[in-house]
Amino acid sequence: MTSDPAVTFAPLSRVAVLGGTHGNEMSGIFLTRHWLKNPSELKRSTFTVTPLLANQPAVDRCVRYIDRDLNRCFTPDILHLDSNEALPLEVRRAKELNCLLGPRGSEEGMHLIIDQHNTTANMGNCLLINNSTNHFCTHMVSYIQRTVEAYECRVLALELKDTNLFDVTSVARHDLGVELGPQSHGVVRAENVERMRKIVQTALDFVEMFNKGVEFPECELDIYRHVRNVDFPRDVDGEICAVIHPERQDRDWLPLRPGDPIFLTLAGRSIPFDGDRTVHPIFINESAYYEKRTAFSVTERVRVRLPPIRRDREGEGASQ
Amino acid sequence: MTSDPAVTFAPLSRVAVLGGTHGNEMSGIFLTRHWLKNPSELKRSTFTVTPLLANQPAVDRCVRYIDRDLNRCFTPDILHLDSNEALPLEVRRAKELNCLLGPRGSEEGMHLIIDQHNTTANMGNCLLINNSTNHFCTHMVSYIQRTVEAYECRVLALELKDTNLFDVTSVARHDLGVELGPQSHGVVRAENVERMRKIVQTALDFVEMFNKGVEFPECELDIYRHVRNVDFPRDVDGEICAVIHPERQDRDWLPLRPGDPIFLTLAGRSIPFDGDRTVHPIFINESAYYEKRTAFSVTERVRVRLPPIRRDREGEGASQ
Repeated sequence: MTSDPAVTFAPLSRVAVLGGTHGNEMSGIFLTRHWLKNPSELKRSTFTVTPLLANQPAVDRCVRYIDRDLNRCFTPDILHLDSNEALPLEVRRAKELNCLLGPRGSEEGMHLIIDQHNTTANMGNCLLINNSTNHFCTHMVSYIQRTVEAYECRVLALELKDTNLFDVTSVARHDLGVELGPQSHGVVRAENVERMRKIVQTALDFVEMFNKGVEFPECELDIYRHVRNVDFPRDVDGEICAVIHPERQDRDWLPLRPGDPIFLTLAGRSIPFDGDRTVHPIFINESAYYEKRTAFSVTERVRVRLPPIRRDREGEGASQ
Repeated sequence: MTSDPAVTFAPLSRVAVLGGTHGNEMSGIFLTRHWLKNPSELKRSTFTVTPLLANQPAVDRCVRYIDRDLNRCFTPDILHLDSNEALPLEVRRAKELNCLLGPRGSEEGMHLIIDQHNTTANMGNCLLINNSTNHFCTHMVSYIQRTVEAYECRVLALELKDTNLFDVTSVARHDLGVELGPQSHGVVRAENVERMRKIVQTALDFVEMFNKGVEFPECELDIYRHVRNVDFPRDVDGEICAVIHPERQDRDWLPLRPGDPIFLTLAGRSIPFDGDRTVHPIFINESAYYEKRTAFSVTERVRVRLPPIRRDREGEGASQ
């Protein structure tokens, strides 16, 4: 029996931990404010950690965003725009953050961005990565899953091509989004602060171990791959005319089969899921997605094999 | 044994059912939109029912308010202001609604306003009245409590003098606020829509029975009287430095004793309740109250005796 050769990565020197990318998602905002005053628990010996509030004007007003969703602004089109005072606030901020934390694709930027989010959906502890082909990221989430066993963590992979990247973490070489739910936007719940804190700490511990030369062996990981978003049923005026079915509410991640009830009208009529195969819905009834015409997102669950990873050894050549 | 003489009230001719007084509290908004298109289930034989979205601009943007909290604008000062285009949107709207639904204190306005709200706090089914001295209202909430037994309903009385009234229901002769939680603002949850619908229907049934001459006998009612609001602990910069203690989160209405843990700092220090007697906290961790510097509200529970009530009989004299 032969095992795959290890995939190697350069050690990480700079990590940013972001809160307030959405200005009303309070676990990360509360922790980031704390870390800006008391950064001691972020300190590690092999790399620097920079806490940052990503959208201060939105945080100050406790709204998701001022002009548009910041975390959809890190697209190639926007990042290549010429700066201009007339641009929407978050477009300008995305360009600033790309300079501050990147620029994307460069060597001098952050090696990892950890971005802290909350959702009104019953998502539990969701670890979000842009691509399951980045095995530094897959091993990091696998390590978090194994280490914070008290909280079940699930892994969501957006599987985005470079030209389709859109979120702030994509500015760095490696990325981790943490989505904790359910939590009302604008509210701090103590137990979610602790969950977030533990997950961020564990991610930093992983980087420290990796930098120090710990090798992470081949293993398997269940990931949920984003497939598509599904809107609410709407009437002829475009208004929502059915809500998430009570049998589906709060059942994020669990299998949804063709024909299962998914929506309910005010007349009491159930509307079945019209997909052609079993899927795993997530972000069920996330308040911020109503305006995006998304009642839930569909994922498929796949088991992937992670090759072993280790740090580049000096003089050994190019890293991924 | 003698019983109190019945308190009499004039029959009710006009009832308004409001949604969207706060533009992101979705149970009432969703139902009100439905009733505006299909009012059949609001129809009763002895009075008219008018469904109304109270703050359409805020509903359109799915925010609590545009300029300021509409449901704090029905104060004597504001209602007596001269109209003026430069006034904040909700101040103008409050004056409009006072004309449309009142004016307060007049004979020609609404005889009852039912106002539908949601809260992120674990308030369950809260029936809110401005004064426990209005025994039409106390009997209405008592009837709802007994009738929708499947949902435990608690009664909150603000106990406001006329000069301190501030909310939209106070424009009418009688008032009922319905506060359902927990629900994230901006989200419609099917089971909360059904709870709200059942409570509003039961209130309308009560009015119908009353109008038809049903007498409601003397009874007892437990009410929670609003005493004061309590802010979060804050640091020297005015920032919140401790959150609701996990042992208190979601325990609205339940007794809070002096010394019980109420807040928790990020350093893990519990902060005890410093009150001088047992109280019943409500609106624990309501997102909209952070800006009002309210972590929770304190109430005291009292049992009150309701005198019997009945409709005025013709020629019998003045009604309350």
